[in-house]
Amino acid sequence: MPSPLYNTASIADMRLRARRRLPRAVFDFIDGAAADELTRMANEAGFARGRLSPRVAVDVSRIDTSVDILGFRSALPLMLAPTGLAGFYWPDGEIAAARAAAKAGIPFCLSTNSVASLEAVAGAVPSVKRWFQLYMLKDRALMWDMVERAEAHGYDTLCLTLDLAVQGRRDRDIRSGFTVPMKLSSASIADFAMRPRWLWGALRRPVAFGNFASVKGLGALSVAQFVGTLFDPTVDWAQVAEVRKRWRGPMVIKGILNPDDARRCVELGAQGVIVSNHGGRQLDQVPASIEALPQIADAVAGRAAVYLDGGVRRGTDLIKARALGADACLIGRPFLWGLSAAGEPGVDRVIDIFREELAIALALLGHPVFSAIRGDILVP
Amino acid sequence: MPSPLYNTASIADMRLRARRRLPRAVFDFIDGAAADELTRMANEAGFARGRLSPRVAVDVSRIDTSVDILGFRSALPLMLAPTGLAGFYWPDGEIAAARAAAKAGIPFCLSTNSVASLEAVAGAVPSVKRWFQLYMLKDRALMWDMVERAEAHGYDTLCLTLDLAVQGRRDRDIRSGFTVPMKLSSASIADFAMRPRWLWGALRRPVAFGNFASVKGLGALSVAQFVGTLFDPTVDWAQVAEVRKRWRGPMVIKGILNPDDARRCVELGAQGVIVSNHGGRQLDQVPASIEALPQIADAVAGRAAVYLDGGVRRGTDLIKARALGADACLIGRPFLWGLSAAGEPGVDRVIDIFREELAIALALLGHPVFSAIRGDILVP
Amino acid sequence: MPSPLYNTASIADMRLRARRRLPRAVFDFIDGAAADELTRMANEAGFARGRLSPRVAVDVSRIDTSVDILGFRSALPLMLAPTGLAGFYWPDGEIAAARAAAKAGIPFCLSTNSVASLEAVAGAVPSVKRWFQLYMLKDRALMWDMVERAEAHGYDTLCLTLDLAVQGRRDRDIRSGFTVPMKLSSASIADFAMRPRWLWGALRRPVAFGNFASVKGLGALSVAQFVGTLFDPTVDWAQVAEVRKRWRGPMVIKGILNPDDARRCVELGAQGVIVSNHGGRQLDQVPASIEALPQIADAVAGRAAVYLDGGVRRGTDLIKARALGADACLIGRPFLWGLSAAGEPGVDRVIDIFREELAIALALLGHPVFSAIRGDILVP
Amino acid sequence: MPSPLYNTASIADMRLRARRRLPRAVFDFIDGAAADELTRMANEAGFARGRLSPRVAVDVSRIDTSVDILGFRSALPLMLAPTGLAGFYWPDGEIAAARAAAKAGIPFCLSTNSVASLEAVAGAVPSVKRWFQLYMLKDRALMWDMVERAEAHGYDTLCLTLDLAVQGRRDRDIRSGFTVPMKLSSASIADFAMRPRWLWGALRRPVAFGNFASVKGLGALSVAQFVGTLFDPTVDWAQVAEVRKRWRGPMVIKGILNPDDARRCVELGAQGVIVSNHGGRQLDQVPASIEALPQIADAVAGRAAVYLDGGVRRGTDLIKARALGADACLIGRPFLWGLSAAGEPGVDRVIDIFREELAIALALLGHPVFSAIRGDILVP
Repeated sequence: MPSPLYNTASIADMRLRARRRLPRAVFDFIDGAAADELTRMANEAGFARGRLSPRVAVDVSRIDTSVDILGFRSALPLMLAPTGLAGFYWPDGEIAAARAAAKAGIPFCLSTNSVASLEAVAGAVPSVKRWFQLYMLKDRALMWDMVERAEAHGYDTLCLTLDLAVQGRRDRDIRSGFTVPMKLSSASIADFAMRPRWLWGALRRPVAFGNFASVKGLGALSVAQFVGTLFDPTVDWAQVAEVRKRWRGPMVIKGILNPDDARRCVELGAQGVIVSNHGGRQLDQVPASIEALPQIADAVAGRAAVYLDGGVRRGTDLIKARALGADACLIGRPFLWGLSAAGEPGVDRVIDIFREELAIALALLGHPVFSAIRGDILVP
Repeated sequence: MPSPLYNTASIADMRLRARRRLPRAVFDFIDGAAADELTRMANEAGFARGRLSPRVAVDVSRIDTSVDILGFRSALPLMLAPTGLAGFYWPDGEIAAARAAAKAGIPFCLSTNSVASLEAVAGAVPSVKRWFQLYMLKDRALMWDMVERAEAHGYDTLCLTLDLAVQGRRDRDIRSGFTVPMKLSSASIADFAMRPRWLWGALRRPVAFGNFASVKGLGALSVAQFVGTLFDPTVDWAQVAEVRKRWRGPMVIKGILNPDDARRCVELGAQGVIVSNHGGRQLDQVPASIEALPQIADAVAGRAAVYLDGGVRRGTDLIKARALGADACLIGRPFLWGLSAAGEPGVDRVIDIFREELAIALALLGHPVFSAIRGDILVP
Repeated sequence: MPSPLYNTASIADMRLRARRRLPRAVFDFIDGAAADELTRMANEAGFARGRLSPRVAVDVSRIDTSVDILGFRSALPLMLAPTGLAGFYWPDGEIAAARAAAKAGIPFCLSTNSVASLEAVAGAVPSVKRWFQLYMLKDRALMWDMVERAEAHGYDTLCLTLDLAVQGRRDRDIRSGFTVPMKLSSASIADFAMRPRWLWGALRRPVAFGNFASVKGLGALSVAQFVGTLFDPTVDWAQVAEVRKRWRGPMVIKGILNPDDARRCVELGAQGVIVSNHGGRQLDQVPASIEALPQIADAVAGRAAVYLDGGVRRGTDLIKARALGADACLIGRPFLWGLSAAGEPGVDRVIDIFREELAIALALLGHPVFSAIRGDILVP
Repeated sequence: MPSPLYNTASIADMRLRARRRLPRAVFDFIDGAAADELTRMANEAGFARGRLSPRVAVDVSRIDTSVDILGFRSALPLMLAPTGLAGFYWPDGEIAAARAAAKAGIPFCLSTNSVASLEAVAGAVPSVKRWFQLYMLKDRALMWDMVERAEAHGYDTLCLTLDLAVQGRRDRDIRSGFTVPMKLSSASIADFAMRPRWLWGALRRPVAFGNFASVKGLGALSVAQFVGTLFDPTVDWAQVAEVRKRWRGPMVIKGILNPDDARRCVELGAQGVIVSNHGGRQLDQVPASIEALPQIADAVAGRAAVYLDGGVRRGTDLIKARALGADACLIGRPFLWGLSAAGEPGVDRVIDIFREELAIALALLGHPVFSAIRGDILVP
């Protein structure tokens, strides 16, 4: 793929490339969030607060960006977050992303709602460190089957997501009438005229949810209808505990914003929590991830790992999250922008940008070892 | 009415639909406010502050959005606020709005300054839970007559509005020369060219103030002239107390921003106060409603109900108002936008949007019962 | 003058009318300020902070906007500030403004740098309550002569301005090359094409500084050159005290931003101080007038009157200034905008707007008597 | 050079002139900074906070703007900062800037990365007070040779820069593919069409790094490649101390943002520190210079001089920096804008603007002597 990505300087640049390539309704599905998108914006804006205090005259010729993630030595404090429908933006998108993660030496987390099935991803990229993300499904038999398939195919960490009891109300998607598969009416004439290749490919490609192959009669649904049909809104802590009991590997709980919930996760045996507001896509006006982080790190108090997603766009964001208590971060939209813009090389470039930005930041801060970063790197 | 309102995702979207349909001067009369409109903007912006703290792993399969409003079980913590001239924006606008409220199971408050008379509304929509809003009129005989007619026609709650001793100075209306009925000179050529149907209907329709049918010689007046002619600027608490004595049902006092005034209302026997700055339309630079709410809730201290209007645009706004001490909220501009955009289905859609947003927010907050919301749902 | 000013709703509207009528360089001379104009903007923005707390159920049928200004019962807490060159923007501009002030029953302060001489203004508008504003001139003989002429012609209060030791650096004027009289090169072709009447009148009109008729050889000067030639940068408090001794009537000192300077003014016998940063035209980054007011009112502690100019644009601004310790306010740019837009009727309209806004605000605040306003009208 | 610079009122104006003259990629190299450029913007915005408190009735007929800079009586509290590549923007740019500094009586600091060699500058402008800025080079023999040449040619102060262990990641330069010498592909067609003279001159001119004449094989490199090839990332305090020992004159350390680092500088015998974030060009999200200044001034506690660069654009900025603890300021971009816009007269004008703004500010503050400014000039 000869795309001139070398002068795509930042994640924000990659977003613009994705915007040029995708039909508006599809771009908006990735980019948008709930209601006024205040939380989505706060996720990013929160990282612009706080100042890093650099030290000079430190030997920074050897930079170490690696961290331990539940026993795996990740080359970067970065994971690819579970995101639905990656294969809708680019053919075999989940596999492309998993390949990029494998090359970079970082974990990849497959979504319940992927286009490629978990078997297909594991088969195509056996070397990737892989997590499986689980939603609580109304059909528990289907759910436990999916869990067993994940275990059987080498997904060694389970990422249970709890912030999708119902689907958030995303105004952009309501306006565009976005469904999966996409209806022609959701794409404007301009979309057709300007992006014939994308539409041709997407309309021909039978988009299905690979992990739900056994479920019949899922036609063109809005995401809200999909969630309402399949996901279970009655989940309580007892049922979460049951998942913890049945899964043998490490389990991480995603979607935590409240310190008391974080404590519950630890108490029932979770190995980690992911501070997340689902990229602001579920409920607007909840705290930005980086704002919620310090209290949750305090509540967890080292008894489990703490991860964060939401608004991570720069190498310095990884450092700030670390300073405030996160062991590593996940990125969702950034890698989808790379994927949508240019497929696997686009995801490669996204990870490269984080790696370069992080390494240079560590050098210029006079803190060559990422895992040694502490809160005192922030100006009080 | 086949308007495709399903993709009108939010109240803000509905406002844009109304803007396309109404002549500029009419839209500005609804949308505008006093002076620099800082208070109007602060009403909305005030709701964007404060963060909601969601809980996960709570069974949210049964959502209850209902509240008690002075003995009436309202399906939502929402009422249609008294607004003048609804029938000017859409034929029989007050009746259309009352019908939408009846279907939704929420109260409707008719304005003194309605186009349809209180008898006409009660006759057309006998099932709606209805309040009557009263201004203190110079002509007390006329006023008491109006009060008796209201009682006779099933308006069981009186909403006495005290923030209109004189009319606020609304710059947009001064600029456009807005009057009722509208003079041709207030509509631009573009208005004519783009909205022929609206103008044709409005100019033919004899707009009158239905409740003032007995008052002669009200020609084309600005709203300020109308208020100056009819409303009484000498009102004091003794006269408010007299209204309280003569009205047999519950009485609510609207337009309260000062905690001492709220205490006076309670002491003279009001069943509720409405924290309101008249949508920022009276005096600019007074507090936003949501800013004034906590102190007033403290002053009332449970001895009466506390309601709020001003800036309510989202389901989460209802939750924040509740968390800060309001029993329910009223909406003015939002339902007028729906009415102006599409008549009764437009108001239906506005209430639907609030219902959907509220229900989803309660689910995602892990607080399925609205009336159980407390201040601790706000991040400290 | 048949200009349709009735729909000029606000001072901001009047500014736009002036902008349409004046050549750019002239408008910029009025509108502009020093450097980045941060202080100019802060003057206005400062009034947008702080909230007024309204009371209801108060008899507001009788509104009293009058105040005592050094023994004169002014109909409004408002004065026309000394501004140079009013006669440059409109023929006989100073006389037009003085007439408007006389009709409105408020004081008018003539600038040292007026186009019309002090004799001409007094002769044309003998009924106006008039102050004379004085700069300390290098040529003391000329200065004392001017002072005596002022006294002889009924200017009973002397307003000594101390913030013009040198002229501030006003970037817009440097860019446009603005001089008085105006050079043709400072007006663009567009100015000529769009405002032929203004330019024709201005270029024919011999603009001179009426009070400096005896000074020879003042050609086309920038204001900075004018100030540098005539004004005295060596003034100290001893010389201020000397002015105080020689002037028999009340003396007010203008340009005070520092509380210690305010104390000095009181100690040497000034009857008042004017908190002012010269409309932000002298030094950028000094405090906004309304920000500096409270400390100065504290320092003066009732021993002299406190006035304010800078950023006063709304009736509510007069109330906020009062609440923070000012006895009355002066307006500069607002009346020059009215004058430039429409001559005397323009100034009339500007004063009318303040009167209407103030009266309505007092009514809606439930405080019918302006002079009874105290600090408790502000929300804490 | 007949450029009409007299109406270039401010440094911001000069920036716009430079933008019109330079190809986009070159302008962006000067103007741009790291990542989102938040620190670059904060540098400037930081000076817009804090208010100056003016005093009146002070004799300001004699203004003294001079300060002592390590034994040199500088006419202004201002130095020309070391900036690479000045000769790339204008033929013999370093010499032009040095001449302007000499005329103005202020120090000039030559960058290691200048186009003109240190010998050429010293030969052309022997009268200028000159500093030499040093980066720690991997090739220590080359470095010590450069240091000896500097000493031999009258550079009496060494300015050791420590914030360039690696090159920061400047997104604009990555996007444009900027290299030195410039590749044709980095200039757009529009650049060619609109700025033929600049390109013709720049492409013919063999741009080389004068002080590195002995280094072979430096082709068209990005600045990051240049830095990576030549600069030493292993520097520690012991090596800094060695430089201090071998250099006989005063030594100033540049790039300090952390108070502990400032203390280290003082302890190893530096005569001064320069609070600097390299104009925001190295690491984004570090503190603005003016924000970091007070703590560093406290840490140094008078034991060494404290200078500042970053965001200095106005005469009042020099006063604020002084009030917060800086002895003088350096300007980088401002003089490069003047140089790029108009060569030596452009730099003259930039220094003139600072001189005029500073003198007028001192007069209007009632503080005629710059060196007597203390922290109490800021409003608390």
